[in-house]
Formats: sequence, structure tokens, C-alpha cells
Amino acid sequence: MVAFERVCVVGTGLLGASLALGLRARGYAGKIVGVGRRQATLDRAAALGCFTTLTTDMAHAVTTGSLVVLCSPLSSFPEHFRQLAALGVEGLTLTDVGSVKQSVCLEAQRHLPASMLAGFVGSHPMAGGEKTGPEAAKADLFHGRPCIVTPMRESDAGVVDRVQALWQELGMRVVRLSPDEHDRRVALVSQLPHAVAAALVHLALKDDAIDIASTGFRDTTRVASGDGELWRDIFHDNREQVIRSADEMIEILRVFREMLEKAKWDEMTRWLDEARNERDRWVGGSGNT
Amino acid sequence: MVAFERVCVVGTGLLGASLALGLRARGYAGKIVGVGRRQATLDRAAALGCFTTLTTDMAHAVTTGSLVVLCSPLSSFPEHFRQLAALGVEGLTLTDVGSVKQSVCLEAQRHLPASMLAGFVGSHPMAGGEKTGPEAAKADLFHGRPCIVTPMRESDAGVVDRVQALWQELGMRVVRLSPDEHDRRVALVSQLPHAVAAALVHLALKDDAIDIASTGFRDTTRVASGDGELWRDIFHDNREQVIRSADEMIEILRVFREMLEKAKWDEMTRWLDEARNERDRWVGGSGNT
Repeated sequence: MVAFERVCVVGTGLLGASLALGLRARGYAGKIVGVGRRQATLDRAAALGCFTTLTTDMAHAVTTGSLVVLCSPLSSFPEHFRQLAALGVEGLTLTDVGSVKQSVCLEAQRHLPASMLAGFVGSHPMAGGEKTGPEAAKADLFHGRPCIVTPMRESDAGVVDRVQALWQELGMRVVRLSPDEHDRRVALVSQLPHAVAAALVHLALKDDAIDIASTGFRDTTRVASGDGELWRDIFHDNREQVIRSADEMIEILRVFREMLEKAKWDEMTRWLDEARNERDRWVGGSGNT
Repeated sequence: MVAFERVCVVGTGLLGASLALGLRARGYAGKIVGVGRRQATLDRAAALGCFTTLTTDMAHAVTTGSLVVLCSPLSSFPEHFRQLAALGVEGLTLTDVGSVKQSVCLEAQRHLPASMLAGFVGSHPMAGGEKTGPEAAKADLFHGRPCIVTPMRESDAGVVDRVQALWQELGMRVVRLSPDEHDRRVALVSQLPHAVAAALVHLALKDDAIDIASTGFRDTTRVASGDGELWRDIFHDNREQVIRSADEMIEILRVFREMLEKAKWDEMTRWLDEARNERDRWVGGSGNT
């Protein structure tokens, strides 16, 4: 079971509220304190019934020995690190759910004193959806999904283990990667697909092509219905790796184009079959049916 | 109701068998003859119970006044046009479900005598799935999806109306476009998304990034689980437009890359928001929820 008497969830939107619901569904009986900036969102989160307390004041939420999980937008993390450093509460275990990890770890190193930094390890539970806000929260949002935990040199080994156990308790498959390795891989499997989906929508608007689109287009572009500002922040924070993945996509599209132009039909068939086989293998192995 | 006493479905895989099932579900009581190359596939189609007869011999299937729908792979169409021309049966209404239309219309013009060509109009029902074969067939596969009908100069107006009525009877929203306009638009909303999905799978294989992929990746790449040879044929037959759409994707990725490189964050947010809003508008209007 989760080894903390008090869990402070900073940001009570889709991810934060799903974390609270998920802990309750697994029988967690400790305190779950929701911290937010806007009272209106806190009131909506209160309706879920899984938070013990909801407050706009971090100082009221965090006590010695708490687990603090930052579930707010990436751009708010520096402010939260500064708040926590100023509070000076000892013995915190601190993690986050941000989609980018190098920038978050750098901000932690910049703002947290050494004693607090040992208690920090980044997390990226790969779960979410286009809908946002506490109303979209689900107790099983994290179940069966991968979660990347990214220890730094400074991270205490026990802290890393406890944070890993938290995600495992919610049914996640935890993978440990360095922050930069995380950012490189997630650019390829999450951020590039998002950029490509948005690009496909923009191209489909040309000459009303979108009017004849069907289920394939719907699924390929689903992620493009995600929140624009949230994704802008993600692209901002993982800029270098996203540029690199865009370059790799441009390069592979050039290869594809050349297969067409030079009529390399056997190579084209192999390329398509390999994608199909590898995807089917992944779907089968990952439970992502 | 469907105005034909006899419907010949050439190719009894996913689309052909779904057409037969759909007609029966709508109360069609006429003959539905399935024509196929392999007895094994015909036997599997027979198990569905919607075909009156199943045969490997086109000459036994087609009689005066029949509706003939080519549901076999694109690469088989020239052979079928030659067979039909050789049979010389009068008064046929002829259409197909191919994903490309200019090449199909050119083959029809090349192989069919003028009297038969007047009875031909191309169709592209935008429905399907990764699974193939008669077992994957569904009576409502076409329901609520767009179908593009592509009249040529030679097409008889009554024939075009009757083919349109067929698809509407199955619940499709029919859009009439010229064959080349069809090919341009479908390259953007169907063939480019397929190429991009396959490319994303190939990129995700680098350094095992695929191991941390989740639901967004699953949906964005779903179409890449389609049949490789079938898609090679589609890319082959719509080569020029697919090259053009790949070039457009490369160009828009360059624009995206520049927004990152030059830190144009407001422009990035607008670009993402526009994609989101346009997609949500399309999803709402098209019923593709």
C-alpha cells in the first residue's frame, strides 16, 4: 500500500483528480489534500468526494512527511518549487506528472535546497485524454499504462522506490529512465504524434478535404483535440527533442516519397508490413488494444 | 429501395461481404451473387448467409440488368473490366469501391466498350478497418460514413443516380466529385495519414521508444495495422497526389519546426488551437465521435 499518511495533490484537474480517485479506489485511507489556484476548480474537484481537504494555500496543505505530487501545468512548476522551498517543511517526498522531465529536473535543482532535492524524483504517467478538468477524472485512468520515473543523481534511492510503488499501486508499468532519455523517447511517441495530428488537421482543411474524412482520419488526429496551451508548454519545455523528432519525421517522409517517385514497390510493401507487424506486436504486448 | 434484381459483388472480403450484409439488413430481397478468385474465401463468405450464390466464374454471375460492384483489390480491376467487356452482357450498372478513382476510371475507359462505359461510375465508400476478410464484415460498416461518387463525362446520369441511391440506402452520405478531385482530397485525409502512421511506428522503434508509448500513440497509428499490399496498391495508383501530400506534410512540419526554433509561442498556440477547434467542429458535424 501507499506508504504516506498524507498526499498533497497540487492541481486538481484531470490527472490530479484521477490520482485522488485512483488512490481511494485502491483503498487508501489517508489524507488527500487538493491544492489549486482557483476556488472554482477546487469546488468542482470537491464534488468527486475523494479529497479530504481542498485549499488554495500550499502552506496549509503540506506537512512533514507528506507526499506532494505536482499535477498542475508545467509552467507552474518553478513557482511551486519556490513555494515549497520557502515553506521549508522537512521530509517531503516530491514528484510531478509533467510530460517533460529535463526542464522539470533543472527547475527542481535551481529552486530546491539540497535536503528537499533528495526527496524529489520526476514522474511521467503516460495517461490522459483530450478532456480536461476534474469532471473528466477516472479512478482507472492510470491503470495498465506506462509510467516513466526519472531519478537524478541527487534523488534518494528510498524516495525513488516509494514513488515507483505509488504508480505501481495504481496499476502502472514503471520504467526508469534518465530525464534526457525520457525526453528523447517521449518526443517520438507522444509529442511528434501530436504535432503530426495537428498538421494533418491543417492540411485536411485545404479545399474542404476534411468533409470526406472518415474513421481513419478521426483516430489519427484524435490527440489534436487536446488543449493548445498545455501542448504549447510541452513543446516549449522539450523544444530540442521535438525539433529533432520533427527532423526525423521529415527525413522518413522523404524516404517514403522516394519509394513512390522511384517506384520501389517491394521496398514500400516491406516498409508498410514492418510497421504493421511491429505495431501489432506492440499492441499485443502492451495491452493497448 | 435498391432498384436491381441482381447484385454481383466481385470480391467477398471485408467490403464486399459488408455490402451484402448491409443490403440484407435493409430488407433487400433480390439475388446477391458473390464472385471470388479463391474458393476458400467464398466458403468463408457463404457462412454469413447473405449471398444467394457464390462462384469463381464471372460469366455465371452477371446477367442483363445486374448491378456489379467491384470490391476486389485495385490491382484486379483491369482484369475484371476485360472479363466484363468479353462477356458483352448489356444493361449493366457497374461501380467499384476502390480507394483511388482516376486510375480506375482510366482503366474502365481503356477496357470497356462505350455501351458499357456509360453504365460505369466510380465509388469510394470511406469505410473499412484494419481487419480483412468476410469474418470482419458488418452490416452497418458503411452507415454514417461518407461515400464519394465520381461521375465521368461518359457516365449515364441515371446510372449515377442509382449508384448514389445504393450507398444512401446503406446510410452513407454521398458526395459527388470528379475523379481527380477525389484523388487529391483522399490523399490528404486517408493516404497521407496512413503513411504518417507507418512512419511514426518506424520512428518509435528507434531506441525502444515504443516501449513507453500509450493510448495517444495507439490511436494515431491505428491505420498502420492495415494490410501492406493493399496500401502499396493504393499508393501506387494515387502516386502523384500522395507525393504531393507528402510534400505538403514536409512543408507544414518545417513551419512547425520554425515556430519552435524561433520561439514563436503565440503562433504555436494559435496553430494548435485552430487544429483543435476545426477537428472538434468536424467531429461534431460528421458524427465521427
